[in-house]
Amino acid sequence: MQPITCPGFKAAGTHAGLKKNGEKDLGLIFSDVPAAAAGVFTTNRVKAAPVLLDMERIKSGTARAIIANSRNANCCTGARGMQDALAMGKAASAALGIDEKEVMVASTGVIGTPLPVGKIVTAAPGLAAALSSEGFMDCARAMMTTDTVPKLVHRRGEHAGKAFNVVGLAKGSGMIAPNMATMLCFVCTDIGADPGSLKTMLVTSVNNSLNTIIIDGDTSTNDTTLILANGLSGISLETPALKASFQRVLDDVLITLARALVKDGEGATKVVQIDVRGAVTSADARTVAETVANSPLVKTAVFGQDANWGRIAAAAGRAGIPLDPDRLDIFFNDVQIVSQGLSRGDRAEAAATTVLKLPEFSITIDLNGGPGEASVLTCDFSIDYVKINADYRS
Amino acid sequence: MQPITCPGFKAAGTHAGLKKNGEKDLGLIFSDVPAAAAGVFTTNRVKAAPVLLDMERIKSGTARAIIANSRNANCCTGARGMQDALAMGKAASAALGIDEKEVMVASTGVIGTPLPVGKIVTAAPGLAAALSSEGFMDCARAMMTTDTVPKLVHRRGEHAGKAFNVVGLAKGSGMIAPNMATMLCFVCTDIGADPGSLKTMLVTSVNNSLNTIIIDGDTSTNDTTLILANGLSGISLETPALKASFQRVLDDVLITLARALVKDGEGATKVVQIDVRGAVTSADARTVAETVANSPLVKTAVFGQDANWGRIAAAAGRAGIPLDPDRLDIFFNDVQIVSQGLSRGDRAEAAATTVLKLPEFSITIDLNGGPGEASVLTCDFSIDYVKINADYRS
Repeated sequence: MQPITCPGFKAAGTHAGLKKNGEKDLGLIFSDVPAAAAGVFTTNRVKAAPVLLDMERIKSGTARAIIANSRNANCCTGARGMQDALAMGKAASAALGIDEKEVMVASTGVIGTPLPVGKIVTAAPGLAAALSSEGFMDCARAMMTTDTVPKLVHRRGEHAGKAFNVVGLAKGSGMIAPNMATMLCFVCTDIGADPGSLKTMLVTSVNNSLNTIIIDGDTSTNDTTLILANGLSGISLETPALKASFQRVLDDVLITLARALVKDGEGATKVVQIDVRGAVTSADARTVAETVANSPLVKTAVFGQDANWGRIAAAAGRAGIPLDPDRLDIFFNDVQIVSQGLSRGDRAEAAATTVLKLPEFSITIDLNGGPGEASVLTCDFSIDYVKINADYRS
Repeated sequence: MQPITCPGFKAAGTHAGLKKNGEKDLGLIFSDVPAAAAGVFTTNRVKAAPVLLDMERIKSGTARAIIANSRNANCCTGARGMQDALAMGKAASAALGIDEKEVMVASTGVIGTPLPVGKIVTAAPGLAAALSSEGFMDCARAMMTTDTVPKLVHRRGEHAGKAFNVVGLAKGSGMIAPNMATMLCFVCTDIGADPGSLKTMLVTSVNNSLNTIIIDGDTSTNDTTLILANGLSGISLETPALKASFQRVLDDVLITLARALVKDGEGATKVVQIDVRGAVTSADARTVAETVANSPLVKTAVFGQDANWGRIAAAAGRAGIPLDPDRLDIFFNDVQIVSQGLSRGDRAEAAATTVLKLPEFSITIDLNGGPGEASVLTCDFSIDYVKINADYRS
């Protein structure tokens, strides 16, 4: 397979000594030229030090590098946490020979333990020296915590005979709920853009992707999505048509990454799209979809491959929005198991059970009460989820 | 141990053929005389047929009998479901020689499958014949679904040399969240009361007990709490002092039952009281307590006996209420592990880990931002919870 590249960007990943098993735990992304930059950050009131730092730095609308570590979130670490985040950024800027304000900093891992920043400072020069246009996969690996596979996506767009590239990297497996559903996600593109447009387009794509996935309903303290646009493709986002074209490619990258996050959800054995329609408003539909996706009883039934639609109806019923139980239709893929609130019988149940054996399927809940629609992507709740999270810090 | 009794009440439980293993699955409670009655029911928009029936019947303020089955919730069963609930009540009234409107009906178990009401009708005469003043334990057993132990509590009060009794039975192990956190709970008392006062006092007690427990955050479609007061003690709730005295006893019964429900939560290995203080309002405190109690990451860490307080801080932070992370204090029992948002170090962690090995303990979260306080009782999230709920219908 051809390595993934994006003109004018280099990346690297190394073992700085944070992970116990010798695997990569420190990643770096570098743009040869100053890039327009935008970011979206966690809505959690408890924000990690690097999140607070990036929220400040992103205001300039420009950046050249991102340094990210796994294994330690540098969150709930007080004044020392901010000093450590600054030191981490400074180590990168010194190694790269750029201004420290051009460096974005990200951390992910255990909350509440001081960051062993000395290890990161020591590793920074070697990490910078290892930068390569083919280094995105190493960087994606360095971001992994409980992830079992790296998440790296490359898409290409065209405009008036010129090509542009969008490369996205993400990590995240647990503590994932909307607003926003990732821990770390970085996008590099050689399109040219002003920071304001970039932010608008990033928010739009995030709302269609990372904000529609639920693994366990817990919102991280470290969620960060950053985009850097260096303009080296020679194409700038100047016309509506070009913006629309870029938005489609960016959507594609982030939706693909979001899907990869759910598929690699902690202990997940199934990817399930929850489609709600027929609600009074799309906000109501979204509330029902999220309630069903967060229900431990629905998630464990999916793990058990049990077409226990009563739990879906019960979750919809407690969502707190207007709902007539006697109008409820429920489908597993195209198999209708419930019609007007009632079971369609043993044959439909048997067909639905076959759907549940698939690794990916959809559950459609039609409230038959209005035009509101919404979808979320989620996974099941398995024995391995409990095992992974009971032992996380050990 | 002395059998539990309440003057003027009889109870029984039998195997009607709903449970596959031959265990009791149909219970009956009967008052020798018409009793004042009050009830509290699920807030779920999807309500089981017997809930809808009881909500109508309780308006009379009087009842003489409760018939309850396990294994089938008679929910999402349409018009037939209501016919079956009526038939179930009618079978009891015929066997008892009372008006059918004096019979309350309750069901618990799988949602969406028609109730095998024929079995219940067939079993009703034998069930009525088996009524005994010592039959409460049999009735409590007949109500069990995934419960591993029956829940039955007896408390006695005194007033001016006369005694009164309060007996409570409950079942519930999963699909338990506030508003209200039980599936079925029945209270029999020989106090005398008007239905209005009874309802007020029941709601007060439920708010202090069944509405403060969380097992898995799912609200049942069948939640029903009923109280029957037959007045045979010769004491009537006429003075404020007597009402206060009865309220204390009723609180005690329902808090004891609520605690028993959490302890027997599906797969639970720990009972944890979440105490939040220092919030701006008690509603805010309640929101934080519920968010922490519902967090799968907190619950799996408790199962793993891991003092992972970062997940507690993260859950508090996403609760959506004002919160200053730098003022956060966290305690496990009396061990303070976090002070002003920071870890108190390895020794405190080690002491907290010792607390986590206990079968019951408290987690106190002090936001240090106001006078608001709230508590909820919850349990951990274990491998067995997943196993139980993946296989529930098989």
